[in-house]
Amino acid sequence: MKRIGFLLVAVAMLGGVVALTAPGIGRGNEQASPIFVTQIPPGYRNWRLISVAHEAANFNSLGAILGNDVANKAYREGTLPFPDGAVIAALHYTHAPSAENNKISGRPQSFVPGTPTNIQFMVKDSVKYVATGGWGFGHFQDGQPGAEAFLKACFPCHAQEKAHDLVFTQYV
Amino acid sequence: MKRIGFLLVAVAMLGGVVALTAPGIGRGNEQASPIFVTQIPPGYRNWRLISVAHEAANFNSLGAILGNDVANKAYREGTLPFPDGAVIAALHYTHAPSAENNKISGRPQSFVPGTPTNIQFMVKDSVKYVATGGWGFGHFQDGQPGAEAFLKACFPCHAQEKAHDLVFTQYV
Repeated sequence: MKRIGFLLVAVAMLGGVVALTAPGIGRGNEQASPIFVTQIPPGYRNWRLISVAHEAANFNSLGAILGNDVANKAYREGTLPFPDGAVIAALHYTHAPSAENNKISGRPQSFVPGTPTNIQFMVKDSVKYVATGGWGFGHFQDGQPGAEAFLKACFPCHAQEKAHDLVFTQYV
Repeated sequence: MKRIGFLLVAVAMLGGVVALTAPGIGRGNEQASPIFVTQIPPGYRNWRLISVAHEAANFNSLGAILGNDVANKAYREGTLPFPDGAVIAALHYTHAPSAENNKISGRPQSFVPGTPTNIQFMVKDSVKYVATGGWGFGHFQDGQPGAEAFLKACFPCHAQEKAHDLVFTQYV
């Protein structure tokens, strides 16, 4: 909690610095930039594979991480930070035992994606999402965006992955 | 072992039936059809996601299953059996704890793909692979195809998934 509190302060400070040094942002009648991703990026289910992930314990999650063309190119070429336009999608499901597979193998060893739990996105736009390291964070459950209070937890945690431009998933 | 033995006999019988009833196959100087996939299908790493899989216990495997356009279309439209030209790829890695992620979350819960272990393929060609249900099975380790004795174990196991045209992975 202490660390997260510190990071939220850091975010607020970063926002202040940007407001002072980037006159092109927030000028005129424009409203403050939205911090979170509120629309599901179209076509994400056709994107290429970046990696897969299993989060055990309370998460009990099995997922796939996909990237659009910009994200994939950056991953493959090792480009950091990710360029604007990069979008990363994490498709999460419960980590469910496969009774069908286990019956055939004769061993309780097979786990497959169960119920879809959420889809999360990271959208790189260094202007729009400047307050959160250039990344917009999104979380969707049954097609509906997550609550703001929930989404506020994304950046402080991802900010700890500074060496990889705030992205946990590495290319497989 | 008993079940596998039975299925190998069944395969041999199936091959015999085909030889008797399909005069277009094996005629002239053509050699007997190869049973296994010996070349890695090009471009598979760009294919679309079908699903992900975690095999625990001795397998200790985390993987992604991708499909070419023909396979994806069939999956999405629920076409069974899969049409000729469908190719399914399974990219396998060790199921490895992520020290980096766990450090940030403060909990030993995160597992990611570790060392690549093998890539497996199922290639649908109802003529070429008629002896194994129309599917050619392939297994590659460090780019090299698996031994024939090893590959012989694929079909008897997959044959138990008759309701899904011998394919274990379901679309996620």
